[in-house]
Amino acid sequence: MLKTPYLLFLGDVPDPLAAKVATGIHDWRPEHCVGQYRLEGCKADLGLDDMTIAEAKEAGAKTLVVGAANRGGVISQSWRAVFMEAVEAGMDVAAGLHDHLVDIAELKQAADEAGTELFDVRVPQVKYPIANGKKRTGKRCLAVGTDCSVGKMYTTLAIDKAMKAAGRKSSFRATGQTGILITGEGVPLDAVVADFMAGAVEWLTPDNDADHWDIIEGQGSLFHASFSGVTMALVHGGQPDALVLCHEPTRTHMRGLPDYELPSLEALRDMALSLARVVNPACEVTGISINTAGLSPEDARTYLKEVEERMGLPTVDPFRDGGERLAEGLTG
Amino acid sequence: MLKTPYLLFLGDVPDPLAAKVATGIHDWRPEHCVGQYRLEGCKADLGLDDMTIAEAKEAGAKTLVVGAANRGGVISQSWRAVFMEAVEAGMDVAAGLHDHLVDIAELKQAADEAGTELFDVRVPQVKYPIANGKKRTGKRCLAVGTDCSVGKMYTTLAIDKAMKAAGRKSSFRATGQTGILITGEGVPLDAVVADFMAGAVEWLTPDNDADHWDIIEGQGSLFHASFSGVTMALVHGGQPDALVLCHEPTRTHMRGLPDYELPSLEALRDMALSLARVVNPACEVTGISINTAGLSPEDARTYLKEVEERMGLPTVDPFRDGGERLAEGLTG
Repeated sequence: MLKTPYLLFLGDVPDPLAAKVATGIHDWRPEHCVGQYRLEGCKADLGLDDMTIAEAKEAGAKTLVVGAANRGGVISQSWRAVFMEAVEAGMDVAAGLHDHLVDIAELKQAADEAGTELFDVRVPQVKYPIANGKKRTGKRCLAVGTDCSVGKMYTTLAIDKAMKAAGRKSSFRATGQTGILITGEGVPLDAVVADFMAGAVEWLTPDNDADHWDIIEGQGSLFHASFSGVTMALVHGGQPDALVLCHEPTRTHMRGLPDYELPSLEALRDMALSLARVVNPACEVTGISINTAGLSPEDARTYLKEVEERMGLPTVDPFRDGGERLAEGLTG
Repeated sequence: MLKTPYLLFLGDVPDPLAAKVATGIHDWRPEHCVGQYRLEGCKADLGLDDMTIAEAKEAGAKTLVVGAANRGGVISQSWRAVFMEAVEAGMDVAAGLHDHLVDIAELKQAADEAGTELFDVRVPQVKYPIANGKKRTGKRCLAVGTDCSVGKMYTTLAIDKAMKAAGRKSSFRATGQTGILITGEGVPLDAVVADFMAGAVEWLTPDNDADHWDIIEGQGSLFHASFSGVTMALVHGGQPDALVLCHEPTRTHMRGLPDYELPSLEALRDMALSLARVVNPACEVTGISINTAGLSPEDARTYLKEVEERMGLPTVDPFRDGGERLAEGLTG
């Protein structure tokens, strides 16, 4: 969908965290990144060569990817000027901003005239089918979380990387905007119309080689009152053979829901398996991914060991340990 | 949302089943129906007075409601002519057709000029919030099914009717197009964007009197691979105090999914309760509604009795028995 390689636009972000999309792209797909574009005052730096649009074009960049969050949701004049320059140089522009690129009239007109494309990756680009529930060839692994934002994308990217490093057939399947910008394709599931959610997931993970694994990025949580329907569509549309449970142990309540406690890993396991087995009776939980960023290295070790013994499943923090042990859990 | 009373448009449907939306409106809200409008060759008849647009206008009709399914999905010239006449007479037009009224350019223009409204009830009219999961005052009952199209709308309308007949505070809350046309308001949940599904259900069932019951129309099934995400949003957005299980005993496989068997009532009870208790730990299953249209009266009796004894819950076919026993299950 998105043409590689990319020039990563960092804008004038006030801190590195505001450029986390660009950081993710650079971490997971360094081969797609020819350089970075920074405006005056930018406080992020990926260590890539700083390039002008002309230099990036010369270096082969096909798409300017907006890897920064904009303040207040409004795309500023200084950002627009860079996007215009990219379009006029014949580059596509891709972003996952709340404000859409295609709604900037002058930019849209310039892109039409230059024959380049504007990709708002939050906006579904495909007319997805209604799910048919038919058994598909190939294997699928889905990350499910006790909560939102506990590391499901990181976990699935790490598993995909470990699979490929082991010479196995694997595809990371993005279901959110950052994942889509990282891999250049995917389904922005939370923006899909309700009736077509599960069908979009089936579309994303079609028939494949018997020994190929789709590693599907999770969304939301079956226990999150705001977004559980999206998670449900992933469980039933994804038809997973394997589930990896994701958890963040220092969270005191569900994200955005102060009145809700997180479920236990056991409760997540039982609920997710019951639901997944409706579409795939052979589904198993094959591993556990813990985001231990909030723990000291020693406490993280202790916690991972305790969970591994309690649950009887390989338990890692893929940020500290990589995804190898979780990938090894995907057999067949 | 829709202005009452209605003139029900039956068009030129080839059989009564094709006018089932009009039949539903007339069955459940006879007080909203001033007459029917039929074209030549119409094979449906609700027993209402046949009226021209002028006669209906004279009788006080505010909205022409399209209660018929159109053949091939295309709105024919003969239908358009009637809609135009209604608009020019100052009436709103409401429909749940696949083709939208607002996309008929001449009709839209005529409505704008006449100051009347076109309601496509399949299209969300509200910018729904993201669900916040906060406990709301008042009580809520949700119908959940072993499958799609097993009688959830009929069941909830019957419960609402029985509640009102008993002098209790109750609101039927429509979540599908037919339900919306019957009551004049609601949420077309299957057309809502994924992230806002649960929020739309919260919006539909706000704080209310402590002894008021929202009787929420269900959609899909937790066990239906195509639409389970929509059902999940109802369970978590609806925050039900009571669940009524709905089932059709002659169904040999899930609707539209030939490879899937229906779950048992026990499996539905356990799954739906586990999920509902995430948002409302006090939730209980209070009754069972069986669509026995495919059984003889005697077999229906036997089946209802067997289920009632096995499940230990009031079990009725509301079409044969009314909704009284299910309403009695809603206490407090």
